[in-house]
Amino acid sequence: MTDQKLVLGVAGMPGSGKSLVVKVARENGYEAVVMGDIVRQEAERRGLQPNPENIGNIMLELREKEGKVVIAKRCMSKIEGARKRRVVVDGVRSLDEVEEFKRHFASFTLIAVCSSPEARFERLYRRQRSDDAEGWDVLHRRDMRELSVGLGSAIAMAEYTVVNDQALDIVKNRVKQALRKAEAAWKK
Amino acid sequence: MTDQKLVLGVAGMPGSGKSLVVKVARENGYEAVVMGDIVRQEAERRGLQPNPENIGNIMLELREKEGKVVIAKRCMSKIEGARKRRVVVDGVRSLDEVEEFKRHFASFTLIAVCSSPEARFERLYRRQRSDDAEGWDVLHRRDMRELSVGLGSAIAMAEYTVVNDQALDIVKNRVKQALRKAEAAWKK
Repeated sequence: MTDQKLVLGVAGMPGSGKSLVVKVARENGYEAVVMGDIVRQEAERRGLQPNPENIGNIMLELREKEGKVVIAKRCMSKIEGARKRRVVVDGVRSLDEVEEFKRHFASFTLIAVCSSPEARFERLYRRQRSDDAEGWDVLHRRDMRELSVGLGSAIAMAEYTVVNDQALDIVKNRVKQALRKAEAAWKK
Repeated sequence: MTDQKLVLGVAGMPGSGKSLVVKVARENGYEAVVMGDIVRQEAERRGLQPNPENIGNIMLELREKEGKVVIAKRCMSKIEGARKRRVVVDGVRSLDEVEEFKRHFASFTLIAVCSSPEARFERLYRRQRSDDAEGWDVLHRRDMRELSVGLGSAIAMAEYTVVNDQALDIVKNRVKQALRKAEAAWKK
């Protein structure tokens, strides 16, 4: 258990704006640990394309083999090894993961980022990354898969919530305010 | 299926500020249907105190006997019978309920209200209503009970999110903005 580092988790539905939170945190001196990278690296190591299906299957397999906080556990050394004192962890998916992080880092604080299904769809559709959804059906299945591991509960229990429903500069300011509040609570 | 009425659901964790959303909606011409009243009335009919334990037990019993959308179903006639064209429904608890409402009302739109666990605890502790929590443990159990029926997923999938982390007038304005946006989308 250590308070040496401020560790902020980010939880949000697909396309809600998690990477924007990470970007703002980086611009404000945070080091980023991306939970999805653990699974993407595993896919690479197996010579598999990091598409949603492979990612989903590897995730399920890892969870089955090593327990439901496997990804969080694999992040701990990355967080501990971070050179910066403030670390942002992208992609928290359940209250089990939150508890696991809190066991290791007393400072662990969760930021939820929220966006309407419509806005998330438009955002994902526009940016067309290889693991992004085309069509409402695909997004809906992806949403349900995320919710089935407990993402909704994590979002509902977050210490800070950023609503991503305005222009970029306004939302960035909301993120900055959340960072400032978390830092103030950490220093107390 | 009817678009005659605008039906807005409100979902939020205990103490998050659902009744504030309902209050602002009422002040803006909405009729309110409180889902918890269904269970409280059932408790009264049975001559039981409406404390969290009795409410929780009746809720579980009703869900077992009549299915997990029993409370939503019992609200339909109240919504249909509302004299006002705009109705706010307090206490939506799961995506199943959201789907049930959407089947009946094409206009159904969900507003989530979010607040940190700490702020919710302070709010509940201060106001000391008979069904409010004393002590973190009690609140935590209550939170977990709410999340276990799927409240987190409903919150994560809401069309609008109001963060209740500022002074009352600021939060009231956020609610008004959400109402205005929902009304504009309904009229389209």
